[in-house]
Amino acid sequence: GRLREVLFFPCPAACVERLFAAGRSPCPCPLPHGVETSFSRLLSHLLSARVSVDVCMFAFAHPQLRRALLLLRGRGLAVRVLCDRDYVKVNGSQIGLLRKQGVCVRHDVSAVVHMHHKFAVLDGRTLLTGSLNWTTNAVQNNAENVLVTDEPALVRPYRREFQRLWDAADPD
Amino acid sequence: GRLREVLFFPCPAACVERLFAAGRSPCPCPLPHGVETSFSRLLSHLLSARVSVDVCMFAFAHPQLRRALLLLRGRGLAVRVLCDRDYVKVNGSQIGLLRKQGVCVRHDVSAVVHMHHKFAVLDGRTLLTGSLNWTTNAVQNNAENVLVTDEPALVRPYRREFQRLWDAADPD
Ligand SMILES: [Zn+2]
Ligand SMILES: [Zn+2]
Repeated sequence: GRLREVLFFPCPAACVERLFAAGRSPCPCPLPHGVETSFSRLLSHLLSARVSVDVCMFAFAHPQLRRALLLLRGRGLAVRVLCDRDYVKVNGSQIGLLRKQGVCVRHDVSAVVHMHHKFAVLDGRTLLTGSLNWTTNAVQNNAENVLVTDEPALVRPYRREFQRLWDAADPD
Repeated sequence: GRLREVLFFPCPAACVERLFAAGRSPCPCPLPHGVETSFSRLLSHLLSARVSVDVCMFAFAHPQLRRALLLLRGRGLAVRVLCDRDYVKVNGSQIGLLRKQGVCVRHDVSAVVHMHHKFAVLDGRTLLTGSLNWTTNAVQNNAENVLVTDEPALVRPYRREFQRLWDAADPD
């Protein structure tokens, strides 16, 4: 069947260690455990990628989402992150860290067009899109949505738009 | 068949008078005519509503989109607009005008949660959602997306979330 899911935020804080370290010993952190939230669903989708992850994100400052991309990069996936030129230097931005740790990052070059997208395409066939920037503040404090689907007629335009923006962006 | 369409922005400026005044005499304005753009598609979808329009929008400052809602209101549709508390007073916000002209407007009450959605549900069965705020700047200058679908499994969660947020919002 087709994947069709909608996640709403804000969501309560909960531990997501189990998603990173399946089968390891119980986590001692003070957050609630064994709780499924919109954020843990988002992270689960992301970590289910097997081949490639293309992220087109205005604001990327969530450390757990950066960690997820690095884990996927370490597993050999092709990970590409396209971000807004002005946001790269913002306090808390994870872009510098991603780049240092080997993730392919580009930012839009236009001084006129502002990159405001918030979507990701996994394995070229699963789309995550909505209002949610990948920041802790948005996850915890904002009313936001993320639509998840693998409907080809919806995924294909985003995949193409990503490639178009990627080709037009500055690799520097 | 299912409606599955994705609109990307920015898009070139073009005249949309024909969408408001079908069959009237040629428009004398200086913008290009007879051009279909992402914005004219968005406006066409909106103006195709027959029963109700629910808009949940962080930033609403586009005069043509306000005009579309007023036209629909004039046709007898139930039009509801839910917006961010802090954005209501922003320069260029169309919220005050909408309210004056009889559209039902509420803003979120929480001082903590920031309403960041950008979606609309038409006739309870067509969803428009994405990164695009309803502002002239976003339409003309930002890289943005709007996904349009009538897939019930995707529309239903947004319809419910709208009602939940509407019920929780301040009618004042
Ligand atoms: Zn823990
Ligand atoms: Zn004209």
